[in-house]
Amino acid sequence: MKMNPRCTYCMLSRVHFESKLSTDDEDLICKTIHECLAVMNKYYDPEAVSASVATKIHRKCYEVLEDDDPYAVTKKLISQAALKVLPAAKEKIYENSPDDGELFRRAVLASVIANYFDFGIMGFDASEDKFEAAFLKLFEHGLDVDDTPKMMGLFKDVIYIADNCGEILFDMIVFDVIKKLGGNITLVVRGGPILTDVTMEEVKEFEIDKKVDRVITTGSNAIGILIEEAPAELLDAMKDATLIISKGMANYETLSEHNFGPIAYMLLTKCECVAEDLGLEQGLSVAKLMNFP
Amino acid sequence: MKMNPRCTYCMLSRVHFESKLSTDDEDLICKTIHECLAVMNKYYDPEAVSASVATKIHRKCYEVLEDDDPYAVTKKLISQAALKVLPAAKEKIYENSPDDGELFRRAVLASVIANYFDFGIMGFDASEDKFEAAFLKLFEHGLDVDDTPKMMGLFKDVIYIADNCGEILFDMIVFDVIKKLGGNITLVVRGGPILTDVTMEEVKEFEIDKKVDRVITTGSNAIGILIEEAPAELLDAMKDATLIISKGMANYETLSEHNFGPIAYMLLTKCECVAEDLGLEQGLSVAKLMNFP
Repeated sequence: MKMNPRCTYCMLSRVHFESKLSTDDEDLICKTIHECLAVMNKYYDPEAVSASVATKIHRKCYEVLEDDDPYAVTKKLISQAALKVLPAAKEKIYENSPDDGELFRRAVLASVIANYFDFGIMGFDASEDKFEAAFLKLFEHGLDVDDTPKMMGLFKDVIYIADNCGEILFDMIVFDVIKKLGGNITLVVRGGPILTDVTMEEVKEFEIDKKVDRVITTGSNAIGILIEEAPAELLDAMKDATLIISKGMANYETLSEHNFGPIAYMLLTKCECVAEDLGLEQGLSVAKLMNFP
Repeated sequence: MKMNPRCTYCMLSRVHFESKLSTDDEDLICKTIHECLAVMNKYYDPEAVSASVATKIHRKCYEVLEDDDPYAVTKKLISQAALKVLPAAKEKIYENSPDDGELFRRAVLASVIANYFDFGIMGFDASEDKFEAAFLKLFEHGLDVDDTPKMMGLFKDVIYIADNCGEILFDMIVFDVIKKLGGNITLVVRGGPILTDVTMEEVKEFEIDKKVDRVITTGSNAIGILIEEAPAELLDAMKDATLIISKGMANYETLSEHNFGPIAYMLLTKCECVAEDLGLEQGLSVAKLMNFP
């Protein structure tokens, strides 16, 4: 996905947000904004890939803040909030013993809704317990774009590219379903801390590796999948996959520039630009299969 | 008022907003954003005055768009929307024949509420007729900061610095009250089109000059009052005034850097940064007298 003019101020607003998470030093916050403005000014281009510019911006931000993970505490809070909602989600997913297709659809729906666990964009307040009510309402509504039936025969070699903390605990229900249906799963997490994205740290903390066949990383803390920083084992796995599941917006922003497939984009269209790029409205729950004959 | 990190992305978002008002040409919009980013990168400084940087940014925006008034149509719509609400406002102000102090307070309150007529910040939709309901609710609530009683003896030579179109039609009720109380009014409007601010064009269109003793301009299309671009007659008038009434946020952002007084800032704290600078909460109706012994 190419950069929209809107991305300029959205990214700067996120830089400000994460600077405040990292420090109370107003001078350092101003310096961070200024240096990120310079990076934006240098790399802004309507032909640039949005998440690629975002990677440069956020790396500069972390560098100036001298903080390799401004979201460290936030990620813990998100995981705690997600854990609270998980039992209700599981109950809804397994309610009345659904058939395989319906079970997969519900698990996917829950993991798409969990894409809301993103403090930077939503200003989500874990302490208010609003998420359970929002979750149940969105679950009732269902998927707005539902290509899950087309995915049912494609589980032989699944590459599952994770997005945020919190969300990953719901992804684990999808792993259970795919494994139950005889599939193989290679989970891909970020190679280093960036935003609220899942890294090997959370894989260990929640023993996620026990739910899948293999865990590999994107090779760096790039936002989404930056092909030039991706290890060969990831690129090979994506080429050989029977199905790539790409969670969230940043993975879409980067992978939509390439032709890997079949690829299922599972996300909430939280951002107007991503929604437009997909030809969809903002605020939808999406499981869209692409590059599939 | 000094620039806050927040101002960077807020200004860029407004540049995008006004670019879309001016053109459908996506390439031109991207070029405009890019050139404004460069200006922001050059002038961003925690010690810079926010409205002064905003002036540079918006002038660059208008220059790249080759449009000296992107808000031309919007301003007409705002005036139409304001005219619709005006009769209800007048009825509330004059209801039950208030005494002079109460009459002035109510007129000021109405003109402060009318500071909402600002499409760029509020995304206000004139077609939805939501403003009358909002107006009546805010009128019922009253002023959150009310220094109007202290202003009652200061009407001999009033300098009234206008802000937005639409709002000016409510300011005219304040003019009526000040004139009724024997005051003299010099109205100050922008020297050229900028955002949705009042210029001599609206003064002529609505015969505003008939309500006041004199109309002068800020000497340029600067946002707020940029002293270095202000004509001598404006500076002299401000020095000699018994009361300066400064409407809206941009006039506050610039004049709060100087010591003119007595000065009454009449505004809604629509922006978090202006609210903080005034030591107030966001979303308040304010008539605050400063630099008064």
